[in-house]
Amino acid sequence: MNSPQIRRLDAREPEFLSTLDALLAFESGTDSRIENAVTDILAAVRNTGDTAVIEYTRRFDRLDVDHMAALELPEAALQAALDGLPEAQRAALKTAAERVEAYHRRQIVESWDYTEADGTRLGQIVTPLDRVGLYVPGGRASYPSSVLMNAIPAKVAGVGELIMVVPTPDGERNPLVLAAAAITGVDRVFTIGGAQAVAALAYGTQTIPQVDKIVGPGNAYVASAKRRVFGTVGIDMVAGPSEVLVISDGSGNPDWVAMDLFAQAEHDELAQSILLCTDAGFIDAVAASIAKLLPDMPRRDTIATSLANRGALIKVSDLDEACAIANRIAPEHLELSMEDAEAWIGKIRHAGAIFVGHWSVEALGDYCAGPNHVLPTMRSARFSSPLGVYDFQKRTSLIQVSEAGAQTLGPIAATLADGEGLQAHAASARYRVKA
Amino acid sequence: MNSPQIRRLDAREPEFLSTLDALLAFESGTDSRIENAVTDILAAVRNTGDTAVIEYTRRFDRLDVDHMAALELPEAALQAALDGLPEAQRAALKTAAERVEAYHRRQIVESWDYTEADGTRLGQIVTPLDRVGLYVPGGRASYPSSVLMNAIPAKVAGVGELIMVVPTPDGERNPLVLAAAAITGVDRVFTIGGAQAVAALAYGTQTIPQVDKIVGPGNAYVASAKRRVFGTVGIDMVAGPSEVLVISDGSGNPDWVAMDLFAQAEHDELAQSILLCTDAGFIDAVAASIAKLLPDMPRRDTIATSLANRGALIKVSDLDEACAIANRIAPEHLELSMEDAEAWIGKIRHAGAIFVGHWSVEALGDYCAGPNHVLPTMRSARFSSPLGVYDFQKRTSLIQVSEAGAQTLGPIAATLADGEGLQAHAASARYRVKA
Repeated sequence: MNSPQIRRLDAREPEFLSTLDALLAFESGTDSRIENAVTDILAAVRNTGDTAVIEYTRRFDRLDVDHMAALELPEAALQAALDGLPEAQRAALKTAAERVEAYHRRQIVESWDYTEADGTRLGQIVTPLDRVGLYVPGGRASYPSSVLMNAIPAKVAGVGELIMVVPTPDGERNPLVLAAAAITGVDRVFTIGGAQAVAALAYGTQTIPQVDKIVGPGNAYVASAKRRVFGTVGIDMVAGPSEVLVISDGSGNPDWVAMDLFAQAEHDELAQSILLCTDAGFIDAVAASIAKLLPDMPRRDTIATSLANRGALIKVSDLDEACAIANRIAPEHLELSMEDAEAWIGKIRHAGAIFVGHWSVEALGDYCAGPNHVLPTMRSARFSSPLGVYDFQKRTSLIQVSEAGAQTLGPIAATLADGEGLQAHAASARYRVKA
Repeated sequence: MNSPQIRRLDAREPEFLSTLDALLAFESGTDSRIENAVTDILAAVRNTGDTAVIEYTRRFDRLDVDHMAALELPEAALQAALDGLPEAQRAALKTAAERVEAYHRRQIVESWDYTEADGTRLGQIVTPLDRVGLYVPGGRASYPSSVLMNAIPAKVAGVGELIMVVPTPDGERNPLVLAAAAITGVDRVFTIGGAQAVAALAYGTQTIPQVDKIVGPGNAYVASAKRRVFGTVGIDMVAGPSEVLVISDGSGNPDWVAMDLFAQAEHDELAQSILLCTDAGFIDAVAASIAKLLPDMPRRDTIATSLANRGALIKVSDLDEACAIANRIAPEHLELSMEDAEAWIGKIRHAGAIFVGHWSVEALGDYCAGPNHVLPTMRSARFSSPLGVYDFQKRTSLIQVSEAGAQTLGPIAATLADGEGLQAHAASARYRVKA
């Protein structure tokens, strides 16, 4: 293996910002072969329900069943998976789930209303979604932590029924994923995946009830299917490659910083790991740590490719400049790897999650600190938020106008409706005004 | 004009639910001619910025300018529009704006954090979006109330800069729209529209800064462009036809109910107005009111088409059944036109806004009651919410792990990371654990 490559940049270079923007640019693009396949799958499941889902599961996952019920896992199977885990794993999952739940309980939004002097009552009624589908990928990206992070906020919100789908190609099940489903109280689990699982949840089949929203990560087919059923059901964001930005003042251990960059890069070759540092000597030390530590990493090939293609070690003049660049990047994960990190939180306007200080490594947030690990990617932290309880609640406006209130509001509404040329609006408002 | 047609249904009929579902079904579909045009427009604006916007504005709106600055309205033009309004209109707009602001102030979400026993601090930082684009249609659907309902929550959230775009074909400006922009403190206004305006906001041009989110209604080109730039910027929902569902216990004035149905139907021919009523005699009376009142409505043709194609008067057995049907419909607007309306609020699980009692006509909510009039359509109230301050705020998770906290959390994260085969995650967590 050659010495690992990672580009070195300096924010003082005249072309720095355009170089940075090119490094950040990522177009997911659309693959017409995938789009066409998904079109067919959605239509087939919509038209024939269970029959189509069974057929696609036979074709793609090589599971041969006669009826959908055979693709549902009983609760006992989930509990058995949990019981069968090594004690350390079971305890870690449970503690992680408890901490994630404790954090998310603080996100619950309550209904409110107020009554005006004339008796008119206005408010906002907050209710949970009735039924939610949780997509869990099979294979390499099948993560129990993802089950925790998606299921717990739904359950905390009070969602009535949580239905998980997880493909089990050739019948291979991930016991950690099933154990996580048991811990979080997922209500039903079907061993189906791909666009056919998204379609089944979105439209409903004879066996699988229609849900109101679908959350959870998936491959390009799943992402395409989710985009296409959006509107029929709600969806969470369609995530891009994962990203970390580390801001360092040169304090701390360069091995730690190198390993934090690796932890992002090991996800996949498109993941992005960037360091902003005020200290050129420390950047050299991190580069040396990368060279030293990489050969021992089991996922070194993925890490090396990710660092070479999408990573960067960037020298900045000072921490104010680092924060300005961080706001331009709007990273999914931001580590403030600094002595006086807390003082700089207020300078950050856009980030999915901020990890403050040397002890706050991203991996703690990925698993068990408490906040959600489903975070906005690809600069969308400028306008979106971590997955949360609020994604499983909805609001209804409450408008209870008193007779006296109608006398005040009716003429205002009628005047504005007339101005917009909506005469029935005006007339319906004037009906409530006494002569 | 013939006697108006509106279908009569009875919930006891065996085919009722499938008839209802067919009546509710609405597929917006995609028009490949529109999609192709939007593709070209987005690419042109992305590539050449102002030049493309000026050219499209010349072609589509017949405005001939040499540079983008000529398409920006100075603040004085907005203020002049406000000053030039008849006093009643100006007062109505101002009162409406004040009430909408007062309601939305209650939606502000604050940051929070908590510190655990070992010193670990966790929290959620809430910040406003930096810059938002507000699309306002030209022509028939150019509504000042829409400016209030989109601009006020953004301003209450603390959005740094609010940029409005509104096409002015042949130079024709809507003074009420400009006055609403003045009242709400819109920061900049450009007289551009269509997909080219969406592209300019999403990508930025030499003159128009890139925004973080685009909100506001538009025609099929605008809707397509918004869907396409989603991800580069945030967008609000893409709305379907407007809907009202009235639940009546047979009390009150049938003219009021008829006019409330008209107020929805006059929006456009695809708008949907449905009455659920326990009293067959009252349904007859509403039908008679429709026949009596329709000929005098200026928009009677639109109303008649909407009622004939998408409306219904439905007899239900009791109010419990009415509420069950309402939850299936998940209407944008729900009027509880009943004596004891307040008692039934708790039976409603899905609605954009609930109007409680005979005095609470939808038109008051459209203009001035306070809650937002941008509401989920096409059954999406099952999973989404009225436009609100929360759409202009975003959240960042705060994770500040203490040294002691890392000793507890590190091993948990490492155990789970090992279970997922993410060794760099595990190593980065273990680095923080002292031997």
